[in-house]
Amino acid sequence: MLQAVSQSAEEWRSVSQAISTLIEEASFEATPEGLNLRAMDPSHIALVDLRWPGAAFEKYSCDQSHTLTVRVEDLLKVMRRAEGNDKVEVRLGEENMLEFKLYDGYAREFEVHLVETQYAQSPLPKVPINISVKLTTKVLRKILSDIQTISDHISIKAESDKLVFTGKSEVGRASVTLTKDNSDVLELNVKEPGESTYSIEYLINFAKAISNADTVTVSFSAKMPIKLEFPLSQQGAAINFYLAPRVD
Amino acid sequence: MLQAVSQSAEEWRSVSQAISTLIEEASFEATPEGLNLRAMDPSHIALVDLRWPGAAFEKYSCDQSHTLTVRVEDLLKVMRRAEGNDKVEVRLGEENMLEFKLYDGYAREFEVHLVETQYAQSPLPKVPINISVKLTTKVLRKILSDIQTISDHISIKAESDKLVFTGKSEVGRASVTLTKDNSDVLELNVKEPGESTYSIEYLINFAKAISNADTVTVSFSAKMPIKLEFPLSQQGAAINFYLAPRVD
Amino acid sequence: MLQAVSQSAEEWRSVSQAISTLIEEASFEATPEGLNLRAMDPSHIALVDLRWPGAAFEKYSCDQSHTLTVRVEDLLKVMRRAEGNDKVEVRLGEENMLEFKLYDGYAREFEVHLVETQYAQSPLPKVPINISVKLTTKVLRKILSDIQTISDHISIKAESDKLVFTGKSEVGRASVTLTKDNSDVLELNVKEPGESTYSIEYLINFAKAISNADTVTVSFSAKMPIKLEFPLSQQGAAINFYLAPRVD
Repeated sequence: MLQAVSQSAEEWRSVSQAISTLIEEASFEATPEGLNLRAMDPSHIALVDLRWPGAAFEKYSCDQSHTLTVRVEDLLKVMRRAEGNDKVEVRLGEENMLEFKLYDGYAREFEVHLVETQYAQSPLPKVPINISVKLTTKVLRKILSDIQTISDHISIKAESDKLVFTGKSEVGRASVTLTKDNSDVLELNVKEPGESTYSIEYLINFAKAISNADTVTVSFSAKMPIKLEFPLSQQGAAINFYLAPRVD
Repeated sequence: MLQAVSQSAEEWRSVSQAISTLIEEASFEATPEGLNLRAMDPSHIALVDLRWPGAAFEKYSCDQSHTLTVRVEDLLKVMRRAEGNDKVEVRLGEENMLEFKLYDGYAREFEVHLVETQYAQSPLPKVPINISVKLTTKVLRKILSDIQTISDHISIKAESDKLVFTGKSEVGRASVTLTKDNSDVLELNVKEPGESTYSIEYLINFAKAISNADTVTVSFSAKMPIKLEFPLSQQGAAINFYLAPRVD
Repeated sequence: MLQAVSQSAEEWRSVSQAISTLIEEASFEATPEGLNLRAMDPSHIALVDLRWPGAAFEKYSCDQSHTLTVRVEDLLKVMRRAEGNDKVEVRLGEENMLEFKLYDGYAREFEVHLVETQYAQSPLPKVPINISVKLTTKVLRKILSDIQTISDHISIKAESDKLVFTGKSEVGRASVTLTKDNSDVLELNVKEPGESTYSIEYLINFAKAISNADTVTVSFSAKMPIKLEFPLSQQGAAINFYLAPRVD
């Protein structure tokens, strides 16, 4: 038995958009504590880790653990039908179906076939965190698009009081500097200065997918993976995204 | 001699969009009473029937019957040039040309070659009407898009006080229930309960094309054609659309 | 040494859009007096002539003449990153790079490689001007789109007190008449009546590209090139566009 009611469709929309950039089938783990999902993209460069505690739902009940695998494309199709104030109710139905009920006066029910998969949970990468910065998602999106103008990769260099983002290619060079004074920088902690380079496409897909997080916490160390943490609700739901560094 | 002046371009835009989903050449019958058009799509699944009485125009005069055949694509091109408050004047010009004058301060004239066709009017399908419902076009568009998420076909099941729309496919199942209480249901008359299934694509094209009808009357019987009636003006102009049921 | 600061990114955006419709590499001539660019499209049908005096910049300094050739695509990419109130600072950097700094609180720097070209300035076509009309760019865009509905070419016929724009094709005929009384006609001077025909695509690309000119001065003579002059600023910056007539 599983029943999970969300106040709005925003979280589901962000989650399905975000995981659609990495994987084609999503295995949600429903437990009495909440919904989780962890998955690595086929190239093993990026990993998504969703934590969605029961307390972050308007109503949540789950009597035993279930692994629920759906095609991400089906999930997206359903969530695109949600409008402004729609609530979302998810239930485990009969005949191996996952039920989605969208309602706000006008009620619609979608049942999606669960898919069989051999599911093995990926371990989280060990990421030492020497540099951590909390930004508005708005400025993160702008920086990534600015650098993408010139390059497919972004280098992030942290000094004690500023971050410098750069991209280089045959076309030329782009750079953006964010200092502690910038109003889009909410926190900046640099234990040890360093620089690291990442694929810009993965980062852009994630920053675009998350529609209901105003802020993001970015953590990394020199030449180590980067972690992006987007809060999905005030009750602790969050989606974490890990991306391997680019090694020249 | 033919001259027909419309207060706005909306009707022409709806009409040309709607018929463009079915046919490539449109034969309008102009008579002293008004403009009519009836055409079947090449697959003989759908039929459009336009009734546009002279009284629904700001000015209408026609001395004798004319069959005016134009390429629908040409008609669409011209109507896309109409803006907000443009009036539309249609006249039969010289040299086998149909003239369209769009004006609201800024006047433009378009002359489109009439096309020769062997025109034979299709008979209207005989549709017994056991179930009839008047809906907002807004909710019809939403239902069709909801069901299309899962399926290419829509089944409509009428009971005495409600309608259930469903779609099924390998992906799963979608359903929407409308009761008499729903504010988008303006009238519901069920003489005899029944269910029927139709191609969703035809219905969507029509519901999207009609931009200036707030309501639609949907009539059908079990396993019989469905009729959609969109009013185009308060003076009796209307476009009716018939679609054959899907037989498994 | 070259430094040019613009109050807004609008001029740069218009300029790069406009020249992108004709050429792939743009050679700006920077002199102590200002920035200029003159280039012909590969088919030798159209020529663009940009005059951008130093006084039209917020700040301009240039110690000696430079020819600065950039790929127009790179220029467009950078300028698309400019937002509402961004200032644009252009500088000649080291290592054959042209630097663009966009800023309005949030500062970004782009450096674009200069390209080597054999640059030879095209001479301006000699255009006798018998007919000259100053229009709003808004009405010019509408007329061009109206005529394009029917034809790829536009004929402009000037009489003493009006202009008639027409297009013909197998489809039919489109025409727009502008008289002196029309509020979109700011000036009309006809020394000698005449008619001429031009490719509509070139004209449309230009009229669309220029986003910050409210008016345009159109000059031509019968069967001679047409000149479109778009002012870019009140301090004399302007972009002129010449197009050869179509000879049947």
